[in-house]
Amino acid sequence: MPRIVDHDQRRREICDVLLDVVADHGIPAVTIRGVARRGGWSTGVISHYFKSRQDLLLGGLRRAAEHLDDYNRKVLTTLEGIAAIEHLLEGSIPIDGRRVALCRIFFFFYNEAMHQEEIKKEIESYLAGWRSSVAKAIRQSQRKGDFPENLDSRQAATDLIGLADGISMHALLDTNAMERIRENSPIRFWLQNLSREAKMKQLSSPLAQ
Amino acid sequence: MPRIVDHDQRRREICDVLLDVVADHGIPAVTIRGVARRGGWSTGVISHYFKSRQDLLLGGLRRAAEHLDDYNRKVLTTLEGIAAIEHLLEGSIPIDGRRVALCRIFFFFYNEAMHQEEIKKEIESYLAGWRSSVAKAIRQSQRKGDFPENLDSRQAATDLIGLADGISMHALLDTNAMERIRENSPIRFWLQNLSREAKMKQLSSPLAQ
Repeated sequence: MPRIVDHDQRRREICDVLLDVVADHGIPAVTIRGVARRGGWSTGVISHYFKSRQDLLLGGLRRAAEHLDDYNRKVLTTLEGIAAIEHLLEGSIPIDGRRVALCRIFFFFYNEAMHQEEIKKEIESYLAGWRSSVAKAIRQSQRKGDFPENLDSRQAATDLIGLADGISMHALLDTNAMERIRENSPIRFWLQNLSREAKMKQLSSPLAQ
Repeated sequence: MPRIVDHDQRRREICDVLLDVVADHGIPAVTIRGVARRGGWSTGVISHYFKSRQDLLLGGLRRAAEHLDDYNRKVLTTLEGIAAIEHLLEGSIPIDGRRVALCRIFFFFYNEAMHQEEIKKEIESYLAGWRSSVAKAIRQSQRKGDFPENLDSRQAATDLIGLADGISMHALLDTNAMERIRENSPIRFWLQNLSREAKMKQLSSPLAQ
């Protein structure tokens, strides 16, 4: 009986092996031959799905976005409020190999997006999805009284995903910034800062007395 | 009498023209020929100072860092406290052509730094300088009572430069993020958030009563 190949499944497997290569050795080390060897395939198998190295990397970006999307969905169904926001923002902080790979592939394509309109649109849609998940969890926190009512959830979400990506990028470039994210959670610090005001308000509100 | 060329001056002029090209057309549009034409020089003049396009871009990075360093020094001698921090952080937020050029050239080399040790060291030193200016202004704000005493100035500075770079990067990639920085100052929002706690402490301290 001929072996039936699930093409979507095979494509995902190849992209996951690519992400392993990126985690261990970085983007410049990626070759079609290297990914084939690591996955135990012939280079012909890879070329069947991806027409070039760049196309394979783009597959890796989309797979990374899929992983983050699954993760964010799981966070929103299992956690709530500030804990949810914290996890949504730390999904791509580079403190383990898997997340180092996500950062590397995203930042590589951020750079490509600066001068390629198609990639830019794709990155914009990923940022929009991330922002709207965070904004949703912020509104939930506001309903619970953990965040100030007058906080603009969309603006705060825009800033917080900027913070998360900025400290991740700096951590990959600078040992001081990497120490900071390894020793403490900067995300938690800024969220607590935002929530303290709401807590203070609660304490001073007539209803709380 | 032969014309005497100040070589350092000429080098700076070339890099400033390069930054103008980057502001108007982006990194991919940079060519030695284009910079020469825009500056009114022969391509030979450029080649005398920069051996390749990449070398010229690196000159642009160093010139951008010089501009930011001058700017930061000026901020620290003319402003103090929270106003100083805000200006230090907004020196490279891409809301005008000059700052778009700074962002583009820095983010281009952030990407190069991911896999080139020499560039990484250079970027690390720029981030260290930026962080230490911000940390200095934070300590000043703490002495004035504008920020909580127990705030770790170095950690807060590390996070805040991450925030500034993260929102700048997103603004170049995403229209929603660009609107956010054009309409409001996210930096000011997060600084006020940080300071509100100190103000509340002051209000509730026995000395203030």
